Amino acid sequence: MAIAKAIKEALGGGSMIRKMFEEGARLKKLYGEDNVFDFSIGNPDLDPPKAFHDVLVKLATEDKKGMHGYMPNMGYADVRDILAKKVSREHNVDIDGSHLVMSVGAAGALNTVFKAIVNPGDEVIVSRPYFMEYRPYVSNFGGVLVEVDSTGDFNLNLESIANALTEKTAAVLINSPHNPTGRIYPKETIKALSELLSRHGKKCGRKPYLVADEPYREIVYGGKEVPAILCTYDNSLVVTSYSKSLSLPGERIGYTAVSPAMEDKADMLSALAFATRILGFVNAPALMQRIVAELTEAAVDVDIYARRRDAFKSVLDAAGIHYTEPEGAFYLFCRVPPSKQGKSGDAAFVNHLKDHLILGVPGSGFGTPGWLRFAYCVDESIISNSGDAFKKAMESW
Amino acid sequence: MAIAKAIKEALGGGSMIRKMFEEGARLKKLYGEDNVFDFSIGNPDLDPPKAFHDVLVKLATEDKKGMHGYMPNMGYADVRDILAKKVSREHNVDIDGSHLVMSVGAAGALNTVFKAIVNPGDEVIVSRPYFMEYRPYVSNFGGVLVEVDSTGDFNLNLESIANALTEKTAAVLINSPHNPTGRIYPKETIKALSELLSRHGKKCGRKPYLVADEPYREIVYGGKEVPAILCTYDNSLVVTSYSKSLSLPGERIGYTAVSPAMEDKADMLSALAFATRILGFVNAPALMQRIVAELTEAAVDVDIYARRRDAFKSVLDAAGIHYTEPEGAFYLFCRVPPSKQGKSGDAAFVNHLKDHLILGVPGSGFGTPGWLRFAYCVDESIISNSGDAFKKAMESW
Repeated sequence: MAIAKAIKEALGGGSMIRKMFEEGARLKKLYGEDNVFDFSIGNPDLDPPKAFHDVLVKLATEDKKGMHGYMPNMGYADVRDILAKKVSREHNVDIDGSHLVMSVGAAGALNTVFKAIVNPGDEVIVSRPYFMEYRPYVSNFGGVLVEVDSTGDFNLNLESIANALTEKTAAVLINSPHNPTGRIYPKETIKALSELLSRHGKKCGRKPYLVADEPYREIVYGGKEVPAILCTYDNSLVVTSYSKSLSLPGERIGYTAVSPAMEDKADMLSALAFATRILGFVNAPALMQRIVAELTEAAVDVDIYARRRDAFKSVLDAAGIHYTEPEGAFYLFCRVPPSKQGKSGDAAFVNHLKDHLILGVPGSGFGTPGWLRFAYCVDESIISNSGDAFKKAMESW
Repeated sequence: MAIAKAIKEALGGGSMIRKMFEEGARLKKLYGEDNVFDFSIGNPDLDPPKAFHDVLVKLATEDKKGMHGYMPNMGYADVRDILAKKVSREHNVDIDGSHLVMSVGAAGALNTVFKAIVNPGDEVIVSRPYFMEYRPYVSNFGGVLVEVDSTGDFNLNLESIANALTEKTAAVLINSPHNPTGRIYPKETIKALSELLSRHGKKCGRKPYLVADEPYREIVYGGKEVPAILCTYDNSLVVTSYSKSLSLPGERIGYTAVSPAMEDKADMLSALAFATRILGFVNAPALMQRIVAELTEAAVDVDIYARRRDAFKSVLDAAGIHYTEPEGAFYLFCRVPPSKQGKSGDAAFVNHLKDHLILGVPGSGFGTPGWLRFAYCVDESIISNSGDAFKKAMESW
């Protein structure tokens, strides 16, 4: 007996991010926690805001009857009503909780969305670079992820997207603020994309969904605005989680919100609830649902990430490594620098950095060879202490 | 645009249990909480044991740095080591935490298991009656659930299973203590099943996995023993959750344990971790992992369920409704009684009961028409107060 063939083949690949996460743990054991500069994974080191702690203790102490039991697959109705108010403000719509389905993080939400909309052979368009887990999230349900190029400055390239649209297109998947570039797609781009999808729908009789993955909506710099999605395009869904805004990635709590103007809204909401059930999530964790409902105004201190970003930029500037200026999220996406030794490639550069105990993720891991990603959701001292290692690494590259 | 065709078709069906759950909520609003006798869903009304509350408050108050962050997809290593000791005792093996993968409840665990072992077109054999969600859990990954008859007293029917085994058989799925019959499969049956699967494997070159779904292992009556699985059959996996033993169904916490003798054990464990990641679970909820690790000796008070079972049996005896004696779990599986009005069928009887504000689930919802299930994880007063309604319902049936 053996495990399923597709899984066996996929195991060889694995996630470059997760591999680096585990490599980091190994090196830290070997060389000491403070001597490894681990910028590999988006696992926020910032603890949740104090308000989270207070609500956790409060609800734990109350521990009301039935609060750990089943609820409807969509989640608690009162929790969804509260969160819907915030979604309404962010997306310039007026929706109640019936438009939301609570989820096991954004990854869980994306799986329920693709289960709900993807027929075998359907396509989902995504812009390179992109979070590589999107590919299995789509292929889990027989769908195919279609990659298109972004513009030179990592904005959505509407011409590439237009060329990729077919009658098989189930959805266009976007992520803004963007992992790994930190880009926020401008309002005009979202508007133009919506018009493109509407035109395509009229032409071919199948209007694609727009799926916006937004876990970084609250991690933005310099007062930048993340454009509203749900009011802009009728067939849109927003998925998000509290993994970054409240630093709760391990607790697996998030939701999907559906545009009030969606053509088959009732079907979609039933399908999302159904998918939540049959994919084995059943419901989002009960206690965490109650907690996030009391924290609609709370978020981690983004100024801390801004300071780290600046510190990291100084380190990279001093080492002569070029990066894209992030508008949000907590990553620096860097070009692999030219090598004096005739070396090349992002995998080679990442390996070279690893010899200097610096961990990043190759751009190939996001569909973009020639680049690499550093996550700066780590203590500022690790960033500033990495300066010498970066310089040394560059000298021998 | 429309949702995926397969989902659209499936939505019509829905889960009979969940439908009754929602019907119950509607009727309670209409007639008052105490006037509806809702035995539809296995949502334990017993609160978690006090030890759970104490650990929850303790961990919430400590709220250690990083305790809500990512951990390896398999779960915390120390938590898995602790739980492995209990699994070792229950299954007469000696395993460490590397044999466990923490999961989003047993439903999540089953999805990762089937993702790991099912090739498109593969078959999973299950004995009727069975928990109907098993069907989508298998078909999510292109597998086919093959139903076989049980014996007259709801034991596994090894001849039926033998006849159903083919080279397409990926697994046999069993559930003991059993939902909906309360049956515990005897040790000899498990042993004979293991031998059957081994013989089949030798003959056709593909040895099926045995997947044991065991959320009710701790809910047993009269000191009955639930036989060990992992020591009995090499290619076995056990999935379970704390939904019933600690009354935590809403918190979505459980695990999969793998037999130490499994042929492709390393592949299987990698596949389960990989499936946990790409199906969007990512990891089991962090705080709940820590909590269950401190509660290996805790469980809800089974005596309470025993008293309810006895009270319910008296009600059914008085009404003249025959049932199977449950050895574990908290369900009474009843034969639809003969009708004086020439009515027949489990759906008709369940509807008739609903007119008397009694809610159960038709046996058709478990692949066994002619029967129905009552869940007695409800307050004892609801059971005893339902006596008159049952009698009246029987008079007009």
